[in-house]
Amino acid sequence: MSTWKITQLAESAGLTDVPCFECAGVHCDIRGKANDQLDLGILYSFYPLSIAGVFTQNKIKAAPVLLCQELLAGDQAIHGVVVNSGNANACTGELGMQNAREMIEQSQKAVNGSGVFLVCSTGRIGRQLPMDHISSGIQHAANSLDSDARSGLDFANCILTSDTRNKKITVQISIGQQKVTIAGVAKGAGMIRPDMATMLAFITTDLNISSSELQGLLSKANERSFNAITIDGDMSTNDTVLAFANGVSGVDYALSEDGFKQAFAEALQQVCEHLAYLIVGDGEKITKVVTLEISGAKTEQDARKVGYAIAHSPLVKSSWAGSDPNWGRLVAAAGYSGAEFEEAQMNLQYNDTPVYSGGQFHEEYLQQWKEIVSQKEFTIQLDLGAGDASAKLITSDLTPEYITFNMSE
Amino acid sequence: MSTWKITQLAESAGLTDVPCFECAGVHCDIRGKANDQLDLGILYSFYPLSIAGVFTQNKIKAAPVLLCQELLAGDQAIHGVVVNSGNANACTGELGMQNAREMIEQSQKAVNGSGVFLVCSTGRIGRQLPMDHISSGIQHAANSLDSDARSGLDFANCILTSDTRNKKITVQISIGQQKVTIAGVAKGAGMIRPDMATMLAFITTDLNISSSELQGLLSKANERSFNAITIDGDMSTNDTVLAFANGVSGVDYALSEDGFKQAFAEALQQVCEHLAYLIVGDGEKITKVVTLEISGAKTEQDARKVGYAIAHSPLVKSSWAGSDPNWGRLVAAAGYSGAEFEEAQMNLQYNDTPVYSGGQFHEEYLQQWKEIVSQKEFTIQLDLGAGDASAKLITSDLTPEYITFNMSE
Repeated sequence: MSTWKITQLAESAGLTDVPCFECAGVHCDIRGKANDQLDLGILYSFYPLSIAGVFTQNKIKAAPVLLCQELLAGDQAIHGVVVNSGNANACTGELGMQNAREMIEQSQKAVNGSGVFLVCSTGRIGRQLPMDHISSGIQHAANSLDSDARSGLDFANCILTSDTRNKKITVQISIGQQKVTIAGVAKGAGMIRPDMATMLAFITTDLNISSSELQGLLSKANERSFNAITIDGDMSTNDTVLAFANGVSGVDYALSEDGFKQAFAEALQQVCEHLAYLIVGDGEKITKVVTLEISGAKTEQDARKVGYAIAHSPLVKSSWAGSDPNWGRLVAAAGYSGAEFEEAQMNLQYNDTPVYSGGQFHEEYLQQWKEIVSQKEFTIQLDLGAGDASAKLITSDLTPEYITFNMSE
Repeated sequence: MSTWKITQLAESAGLTDVPCFECAGVHCDIRGKANDQLDLGILYSFYPLSIAGVFTQNKIKAAPVLLCQELLAGDQAIHGVVVNSGNANACTGELGMQNAREMIEQSQKAVNGSGVFLVCSTGRIGRQLPMDHISSGIQHAANSLDSDARSGLDFANCILTSDTRNKKITVQISIGQQKVTIAGVAKGAGMIRPDMATMLAFITTDLNISSSELQGLLSKANERSFNAITIDGDMSTNDTVLAFANGVSGVDYALSEDGFKQAFAEALQQVCEHLAYLIVGDGEKITKVVTLEISGAKTEQDARKVGYAIAHSPLVKSSWAGSDPNWGRLVAAAGYSGAEFEEAQMNLQYNDTPVYSGGQFHEEYLQQWKEIVSQKEFTIQLDLGAGDASAKLITSDLTPEYITFNMSE
């Protein structure tokens, strides 16, 4: 079994770091504001793509989410995706579906391609898309498609909403002359002013892999990355992760040895985790990134329940914002999570420093707790002492500025 | 079937409005601060009491909660309750249990009574009670017991933590010369700075009723009052509702006609609902009280899921704080609640004004929406169109001041 090496590029240009993917990101004034913010992009591959997708679990799904799901279930050859920011095309009824279909058709026509496009939108909920702007944007983007770094960056930028910076990563898996590249870009979480849809992520690779194999790997990577972060607990109507494989590396997944398969899964996981981490770090008006390691749970579901109860407690999150090592609120949140455990068996630590165990808190460490929760990043370890299951979540604090930011349009 | 009349007293003095209940509320400096805030109280009845209780569902239960549950399950005659604020006696291990038992024994000794006391605590989590202060407080309170209005008010005040005012109500159920009184006092919700336990409520009545009958009525009233409010979604380790009946009215519940039974249930419900409403209205740093009426759900559980998802969404609550009629966030929260319904069947209204139905929003009412959510109190009606079940919740907005208030000690 050969050892494949995973390397993260020092500088990523986003999706065009993978050979034979073309990108564009343009401004077509979807927000109707006098600025030149990029707001529409196209990712295109001349070669037909293997595709995997993970979508919001929200019952209310935006029109583009419904269309993507429909297309992924079908058998048409897919060659790319068209994306806009500034308008989520969610809660827009039949007209919204029609407009999303229109975006696909116009993109297909604009690139003179035979294949079908997927479509994603992010932005305000409940407004119809300004289709005249969208149409000219699609035309402009199609004409601008290129495989250079600039185009990759434009695409990474055109999907942003309240994000303060773009989010991208590129890794390469290599052995000798053989090389497979995975690149990813994302836009941020923290349901966003005023009704922004949350998270979009796009991943490209030149591996030759079937859609169903790619789907399996993406679903798994998603569980421990995008599904393990939370800013405010709000789940959007538009959350979408799409992975595209064009096969041009010549490396065939199905024919590969286990060593490569494992390396690819790891690299994909790394891409997803890194993007997820960047999303939390750029959450709306946050000041702390907190990793929750819940262990000793009866089931993984219990571990996640405890993690989410802590991560969604306004009281816990407020105390983090104030650098207050408020373990009482944290223990209380675990207590109402619905998970099965006994108070006396709990073992709570901040960055490996004892906080609470055996039904007693260890106040002699108070000064250390305070130093730890004053840092920009820290880890909270909670062993429930009830079993062997565990879960890891990454979350943030909740600041007065978050509320002010979200109080109005 | 005779008609019993339910009257709310214009001015309530709290629990001593019911004949033969004695109260006291004293200062014994549990917080260790140089002020004279009342922090310990006793409610006492010479006559043995029928008792019902409802307690926090949190897995982490404070020592006094565990003791109350133990005593309610036992067969000792109970004559009252001793309460302190400023320290929750939660997460305090074996010593905490011992201290709670001590409070009971000392109270019993101090009133020279034969019966047993219940015990409640509210305040900081994870600190041992200052038992010397508690002991002198109990002695002082026992010596101060009286059935006058002043004592009732002292008791109503001594249980407060971050509440800005006491919460009390008295109602009478009458027909001819016959009269039954129900009085209630409560302390507030909004898990409180820095680790305060949330809600306590005490209810007295002079009805002659068995503990088990009283328990049935209290549990039912609790479902649609204390269990139907939420400030921040945090559930405390100490939440307790206790109802005490001394029987001195001479009216016997078991022998009463249906008309009276119904009137008593209604009056008890009214007492609980009023106290719950006062709790939300005095939530930490809130500016809006919002009633959520969820209807058309497949099950009551689904209706509650939708209500809680909306009531706990930081984004929804932030928009209320900003008087922003942000229906998109609200619909998205319903969507991720886990309840079963279809977007196209939803019908959303603010104070009966159409907002969203048939998959379309009705932006022609935008000005009216803005006026409605600018008010201090408004109602949001959401019909899911999926069934006949419904639920009502009362909640509040989330303000930057709430976060600042909870950021540190």
